[in-house]
Order: sequence, then C-alpha cells, then structure tokens
Amino acid sequence: MTPSLGLCYNLVPMSRHNSANHPDGHDCFYDTTVRVRYAETDQMGVVYYGNYYLWFEVGRVELCRQLGFEYKKMETDDDSFIVVAESSCRYRKPAKFDDVLRIRTRIAEAQRRTIRFAYEIYRDETNELLANGETFHVICDRLGRPKSLPEKYRKLFGVKAAHLAADSADTQAISKK
Amino acid sequence: MTPSLGLCYNLVPMSRHNSANHPDGHDCFYDTTVRVRYAETDQMGVVYYGNYYLWFEVGRVELCRQLGFEYKKMETDDDSFIVVAESSCRYRKPAKFDDVLRIRTRIAEAQRRTIRFAYEIYRDETNELLANGETFHVICDRLGRPKSLPEKYRKLFGVKAAHLAADSADTQAISKK
Amino acid sequence: MTPSLGLCYNLVPMSRHNSANHPDGHDCFYDTTVRVRYAETDQMGVVYYGNYYLWFEVGRVELCRQLGFEYKKMETDDDSFIVVAESSCRYRKPAKFDDVLRIRTRIAEAQRRTIRFAYEIYRDETNELLANGETFHVICDRLGRPKSLPEKYRKLFGVKAAHLAADSADTQAISKK
Amino acid sequence: MTPSLGLCYNLVPMSRHNSANHPDGHDCFYDTTVRVRYAETDQMGVVYYGNYYLWFEVGRVELCRQLGFEYKKMETDDDSFIVVAESSCRYRKPAKFDDVLRIRTRIAEAQRRTIRFAYEIYRDETNELLANGETFHVICDRLGRPKSLPEKYRKLFGVKAAHLAADSADTQAISKK
Repeated sequence: MTPSLGLCYNLVPMSRHNSANHPDGHDCFYDTTVRVRYAETDQMGVVYYGNYYLWFEVGRVELCRQLGFEYKKMETDDDSFIVVAESSCRYRKPAKFDDVLRIRTRIAEAQRRTIRFAYEIYRDETNELLANGETFHVICDRLGRPKSLPEKYRKLFGVKAAHLAADSADTQAISKK
Repeated sequence: MTPSLGLCYNLVPMSRHNSANHPDGHDCFYDTTVRVRYAETDQMGVVYYGNYYLWFEVGRVELCRQLGFEYKKMETDDDSFIVVAESSCRYRKPAKFDDVLRIRTRIAEAQRRTIRFAYEIYRDETNELLANGETFHVICDRLGRPKSLPEKYRKLFGVKAAHLAADSADTQAISKK
Repeated sequence: MTPSLGLCYNLVPMSRHNSANHPDGHDCFYDTTVRVRYAETDQMGVVYYGNYYLWFEVGRVELCRQLGFEYKKMETDDDSFIVVAESSCRYRKPAKFDDVLRIRTRIAEAQRRTIRFAYEIYRDETNELLANGETFHVICDRLGRPKSLPEKYRKLFGVKAAHLAADSADTQAISKK
Repeated sequence: MTPSLGLCYNLVPMSRHNSANHPDGHDCFYDTTVRVRYAETDQMGVVYYGNYYLWFEVGRVELCRQLGFEYKKMETDDDSFIVVAESSCRYRKPAKFDDVLRIRTRIAEAQRRTIRFAYEIYRDETNELLANGETFHVICDRLGRPKSLPEKYRKLFGVKAAHLAADSADTQAISKK
C-alpha cells in the first residue's frame, strides 16, 4: 500500500485523528505554516471562525506546489479550476494572534471530476490540534462547467484507474445537482 | 406544534430544501439581506467560499435581534458567548458581485449549553438557493469555559424543559472534548 | 455653480469636516448604511483598520447606483474599471460590533481618466464622525490599461468640459508612472 | 548618526524610493515575506486594495520581532496598544495570486506617544515595487486612552531624548483631537 504521491514527506501518525483507513494510498499529509495575523482575530480575542477556510485554501495551494505544479497554472494553462462544492470545519481549540500554525493537507479522495481534501491545523509550538476539516471540489472550466481533470494532474492527485469505470456514474451525480 | 418563538414571521415553505421535520417547533426562518461586496469576490469572478460563513454570522446576529435581544449585550451584560464548534456549507450556485442575498437563519436545535443554527442563502432577485449550511455552538463565558445559557435566553431560543433532564449527559460530552 | 449630479440628495452640512470649497460643484454626498459584522472586529474589541476601505468601496458602489447606473455594468458592458491608485483614511473614533454606520461618499474630483472620491463614516445613532478618507482612481480596461471614461459616464461623474483641455497633460502624468 | 536599532540588517538602497533623508537614524528596513492568497484577490484578477493594509500590519509585527520583542506581549504585559490613527497606500502595480511579496517596514518617526511606520511592498521574484504607504499610530492603553510608550520600548523604537522636550506639545495635539 505505497503512496502514489512521490513527494510525500509526512507519514500519517497513528493518532486518533487519523484512524480512518485510506485504501487508495492517500495517506500523506503535506505541511505548510502560517502565522496568525491581527486582522484574523475578532473581539473574542481569538481567530474568527471563517478564517480557517482561508488557511485550508493555503494548504491546498501548497499541496499542489509540493506535488510538483502551481495551482495558478492549472487555471491559466489548463483551464481547470478546483471549485469548492462543500466545506466543513470542526473547531477544537482557538488559534490566537501571532501563533504559528501548521496546516496539514491531505487528498482524501480523488476522482476524475472531483477531489476531496482533508485538513488539520496545529499550533506549531505545542503540537495541539486546533481544528480539522474537509473540502469537496468539482473540477470546472473558466465558465464554471464541470470537466474532467486533465490527464497530467490525474496521476499527481492519485486518481486511480478504477475510478475511470465509475466515472460516468460520477458525472451523472454531478449533473443532477 | 406551535412555534415557541413569538416573533417568527417566516413560515417554512414546503419546498424541497425544507422537507426536514422539526418536532421541537424550530420551524421558523429569520431573514435578512446583504449585498455582495467587491472585496468578497475572488479572481474566479464569484464570491470566495469562506465569505459565506461571514453571512451566516450576519444571519445569527439578525436572528437574535428578531428574537428580541442584541447579541452584543448577551456578551457584555450576561457574559455569554456563542462560540462556534463546527461549521459546514454546501455551495450550489455562485453568488456574484452586487447580488442582493437573502440569508435565512433557523434555530435547528437548542439545548441548555449548545445551539445549532441552519442557514440558507438565496439570490433575492431570482429566488435561487445558492448555498446552505449549519453551525454548531457551545455557550461559553469570556474565558472560554462552557456554561449554561442564561435563563432569559432559553425561552427565546426555544430550549425545551425536556432538555433539562438530558443536560448532565450533555455537559459531560462537552467536558470530554 | 449648481451641482451637475441631478440625483444628489444630501447637501453638504456647513460642518468643520466639509469646509473645503468645491468649485466644480461636487458638493453632494451620497449616503448608504452598513452594520458592523463580528468578523470585522479584531482582538482590540473594535473594527480592524483595513475594513474601513471595504466600506469606502461599498460607498463608491452605492454612489454609482444613486447616480443612475450599476458599477458592475460599467465593467462588463463598457470595459471600464475604476482601479484604485491611492487610498487614505484617518481614524477618529473606533467603530464597534453591531454599530450602524452611515457611509457618506462624494466625488471630490472627476477628470476624463481619473476620479477622486472622498468619504466620511459616521456612527448613525450618535452622528459621530468615526473616520474619513479618500481614494484616487484611474479608469482602466480589463487588461489594466488606462483609458478615458466613456462619454455616458462623464456627465454622471461631473467631468467638466474644461477638463478636456487638460486631458493630454493628465494622460502624460499617468503614463509616466 | 548611527542607527539606534541594533538588529537592523537592511541598509537602505540608494533607490529613488528611498531618497528621503532620515536624520534621526530611522533608515533601516525590516523585511518579511508573504505569499498572496486566493482569498486576497478580487474579480479584477488582482489583489483587492484593502488587503495591502493587512500586509502592512504583518510588516509592523515582524519589525517588532526583529527589534527583539513580540508585539502581543506589548499588549498583554505592558498594556500598550499601537492604535492606528492614519493610513495611506499608493498602488503602483497589481499584486497577483501566488506572488511572493517582500514587505519592507521602517520606523519613519517615533515619539513618546506616536509612531509612524513606512512600508514598501515588492514582488520578490522581479523586485518590482508594487505599493508603498504609511501608517501613523498613537500608543493607547486597553481602554483606548493615549499613553506614553513604556521606557523599554523607547530605545527599541528609536525615540530620541530630544523628543522628550517636545512631548508636552505632542500630548496636547493628541488631546485636542
């Protein structure tokens, strides 16, 4: 069960937060760090809940870079946008101003037309898990029409051949939305 | 099964988005509108996904006002903060710059120590559902310690007497987090 | 020296904040209101300083609407973008969560290729001036190249014929940037 | 006239942007970098103008760290808040998604009760100046009352003894606001 992503450098720790079984080899986390800005806090003295989604986005973009490509070029060169269809976050402990946060991003599932990312956000100094969440995406062109992920990205995202067979059903599910 | 919230002015339409059964009488939506700001768009030409959570917050605050109190006074006068523990959103159609959005907010569940809100965001002009989501909250004091909702808010939020019995179990669940 | 903007409904009060002489008739304020969101506060307990610029933008967009057109159509239909070249703000008293703010926007100067807006932000309940500022803009096409304001907008923005003569010098100044 | 800031590592380049003479030794820039987030762009395809002020804030906080203290501790331990009284920015070239930006921050002027910071933002890859600006601040306690900068910060910020004499006049100016 070797990872399909050659650049993966974070093996999943056997923690309670990662107990899920990932049979398709998506068991790599890609890490990046951000420092909490004053603007990101609110009058409760901690980070405003909506800002975690900005960090998830930072995590996605850095995951792409670590996989070997720049997301911006996926948009401009290949007319492929990773459009958000669902997002969720569970807040465990508050992030605070000036904290260094480690954003751990993982491809939870990749199919020809959809990708699911999972995220964990840690306070870097104490290694506390502050929040975790997921986002589910549909690949679209610049006009917002669903499309298949270009061939060159499928291997990078770990889209399996087995998904090809399931793709027509997948497509129908999206069209019905 | 009359609503326990006297100020409710929106009966739930019998639409496919509201087919859920709400046996505890939380079947009122409280509406407010916002207009999409340029700052809220991103280079995809539509609203950035994280901004829907800001509108959910606007919906919560206006729901409180329509229930008869100001949320800011709940913080300052009663040391009770509605802290976000979970959030989720499903994006159906993109909101665009200058759209007038109708934010429909509903108390999905209220217990002595926790509240769940549900939201629907419509493009006001076309009545299209653009997104819907939920947030789950724990009542905390200014130091972030879970506490019970002050008595005067329980009736307003529709906390039922039946919840009182379940409250000790509820408290334990939160403490274990 | 009557105002050239027919829809103006706010005469400038003779206050110390408006003592400037506006010989070109741009002495109308266009008002709109916003309510301060929780997300807009920071851990100082007041609004984060960068957010005033979002309200200036709201003021500009509503000024356009009150002049009789939608800014979004100026972009899409006439390929004319009001690009920000300079911005400034002076903070006098802090805006707080849930305050209703009155944004007063005025065209301070309009030429064929540039527009300067001035803003005042008041706490609506107390009529206190909280902040004031300016933004200076260059009209550009979608590729970011400076261009002249389309004819139909010149009258609305109060571009005077006298400015036509000065326009070539104006253009040179922009090109040298 | 040696700099009073021991940790300064950026000598001012003899560029046209830095030609100003800084007789009080405030001729050091403190650098940090950020990468432009998707959330920071708008539908014009470039960074929204208000976001440059967030980067100015990042620059201020990192300047403090490079001077040898954490701004958050100045708030919590010394009840001293660097409150923004004025801000301005001039936009020269647009920052774009995924750009690495170099934020150069400088203490333009420091007195016992006020500080002025100057900023320059460069696209790191090309060394192009994208924007520059200033912010002017008043030192306040947690209740928002102006106060003098605690002794230990005066040397770090380069407050000169000569300013002490001028301080009473300075105080009067602030009080009159």
